[in-house]
Amino acid sequence: MSTENQQKNQKEYHKQATGEALRTVQRRSSEQQLKLFGACFCPFVQRVWISLEVKGLDYQYIEVDPYKKPKLLIDINPRGLVPALKHGEWGCHESNVLLEYLEDITEQHPLLPTDPKSRADSRLWVDHINRNIIPGFYRLLQAQEMGKQTEFAQELKMEIAKIVDAADADGPFFLGPDLRFVDVSFAPWMIRLSRVLGTYRGWPAAAEDSRFGKWLKAIEEHEAVKKTTSDHKLYLDSYERYAENRPNTSQVANAVNSGRGLP
Amino acid sequence: MSTENQQKNQKEYHKQATGEALRTVQRRSSEQQLKLFGACFCPFVQRVWISLEVKGLDYQYIEVDPYKKPKLLIDINPRGLVPALKHGEWGCHESNVLLEYLEDITEQHPLLPTDPKSRADSRLWVDHINRNIIPGFYRLLQAQEMGKQTEFAQELKMEIAKIVDAADADGPFFLGPDLRFVDVSFAPWMIRLSRVLGTYRGWPAAAEDSRFGKWLKAIEEHEAVKKTTSDHKLYLDSYERYAENRPNTSQVANAVNSGRGLP
Ligand SMILES: N[C@@H](CCC(=O)N[C@@H](CS)C(=O)NCC(=O)O)C(=O)O
Ligand SMILES: N[C@@H](CCC(=O)N[C@@H](CS)C(=O)NCC(=O)O)C(=O)O
Repeated sequence: MSTENQQKNQKEYHKQATGEALRTVQRRSSEQQLKLFGACFCPFVQRVWISLEVKGLDYQYIEVDPYKKPKLLIDINPRGLVPALKHGEWGCHESNVLLEYLEDITEQHPLLPTDPKSRADSRLWVDHINRNIIPGFYRLLQAQEMGKQTEFAQELKMEIAKIVDAADADGPFFLGPDLRFVDVSFAPWMIRLSRVLGTYRGWPAAAEDSRFGKWLKAIEEHEAVKKTTSDHKLYLDSYERYAENRPNTSQVANAVNSGRGLP
Repeated sequence: MSTENQQKNQKEYHKQATGEALRTVQRRSSEQQLKLFGACFCPFVQRVWISLEVKGLDYQYIEVDPYKKPKLLIDINPRGLVPALKHGEWGCHESNVLLEYLEDITEQHPLLPTDPKSRADSRLWVDHINRNIIPGFYRLLQAQEMGKQTEFAQELKMEIAKIVDAADADGPFFLGPDLRFVDVSFAPWMIRLSRVLGTYRGWPAAAEDSRFGKWLKAIEEHEAVKKTTSDHKLYLDSYERYAENRPNTSQVANAVNSGRGLP
C-alpha cells in the first residue's frame, strides 16, 4: 500500500489469498506440468480453480499480480489478464476457454452433461452469465449516482431471476444435486454478490428458503468452492476501489467506465 | 420501406436473401427436424448456416424478421435475436453455442480439431473475434465523427492483425488447407469488411498477396460461404442505417451507442 493510500485509509487489492484459499495455495505450490496463474481476488480465476479442484487434477497454483503484468503472464496472454494456464510448454487463457479445455482433457467428474442438447443449454446459460450478469455486476459496483445504482440493481436482479427460473426446481445446484458447468461459471459472482455488493451497494441477503438462497448455500458449502475462497475481508478490500470508482488500471473497470464490453 | 424512407431514399434491411443465398434458401425450404431461423443479412446467422452446409446436414432454413420478433422466434429466444435453432421440440440460440452444438451432434466434417490444446487455441481465437473484432466492426460502422472513425479503424486493424499473425503461414485458412472453426466464426465479418466497411468507411481492399488477402479469397471462394452469401447490394442496403447511425431498433446498434457489450 502506498503512503498516500495509507493516509487516506484506502484499501488495495490483496496479493495473497487468505483463509481456506491460502491453505489450498500452499498445498498446490509444488512444481507440476499443469500450472494455473491466478490472482486471489479474481472471480474469472476462481472458475478455473474450482474446476481443477472438482476434477481432482494435479496442478500448481501460482499467484501473480495482473496489474503488474509479470513477463511469465504476458508470455501466455499479451493482454496480461488472469487466469492463464500452462500445460507443459503450451499456454492459454480466457476462463471459458480454459473450462472447456479441462473438460476435454479429463474423463473424471465432467462438468458438462453428455447429451448434446443439455450441453448446449449449459453453454447458453454460461453465455447469459458472461453477457448479462457479469457486466451488470461491475456496472452496479462502479455506479456512483443513486439513480444509476437503483437502475443497475434492478437490471441485475432481472438477469439473475432468469437463470434462477431456468434452474432445476429441487436443485440445490443448477441441474440438480451436483455442482456442474453453469454453477462453476456463476459461483464466483454469487459469492461476491453477498460479500461485495451486500456491503457496498446494500444488495439484500438471499432469503434462505428462496431458490436462489438454496443455491447460494449449496455453493458456499461446496468443498471446491470453499477451498478457493478467501476470507470476506480480502474481497471487501480488493473491490473498494471499484466501489468508489477510484481511477485505477483495471481493464475491467475501465471498460465499464468507457462503455466497452468486458476484456 | 415506409413512404417517408422512400422519399428520403433511405435503404432498409432486406427481408429475403438474394443471389446464391436465395437459391440455398429455396433448396432448404422443405420441412426438417433441424430448423435454422435466420435473417439474410445477419452475420451471426451466417456462421451457423455455413457450418450446416459444411457438415452436409439436412436442415430447413426459415427466414424471420428479428426486428418484428415473431412468436416462433420469441419462443426460442425471449430476446428475439437470430440465429435460433430448433431440433425437434428443443430450441436454442447464440451463434457460438449453436456452433458447438453442431460439433457435438456430428461425426462428419468436424470444424474443431481433435487435440484438446488445438481445440482451446481455436476457441481462444473465436473469443478474440467475439470480444475484440466484432464490437470494433460495429463501432467503426456507426461512428459519425472523422476522428472517431480514424481511431476505431486503427483499433480494428490492430485486432485483425493479431489473428492474421496467429494463422497458419501457408493457409489459406486459419489452420491450413481446410475451412475450420475459426474461419467459420470470422467469415461473415471478413466478407462484410470489404463489402460494407469498404463502401461506408473506405476500408481498403486487402492486398491479394498479403496473408489476409489470401485468406479472404479462400473464404469468398469456399462453397459453403458462397451458398450462404447474398449479392453485395443486400448488405449495403441492410447496413446503411448503421452507417448513418439512424435511430433504429437494432439491439446491436443500441448497445454500441449506449456503451454496452453486444447482445
Ligand atoms: N475475459 C477474461 C477476463 C479476466 C479478467 O478480467 N481478469 C482480471 C482480474 S479479475 C485481470 O486480470 N485484470 C488485469 C487488468 O485489468 O489489467 C476471462 O474470462 O478470463
Ligand atoms: N449474440 C448473438 C447476436 C445475434 C444478433 O445480434 N442478431 C441480430 C441480427 S444480426 C438480431 O437478431 N437483432 C435483432 C434485434 O436487434 O432486436 C449471437 O451470437 O447469436
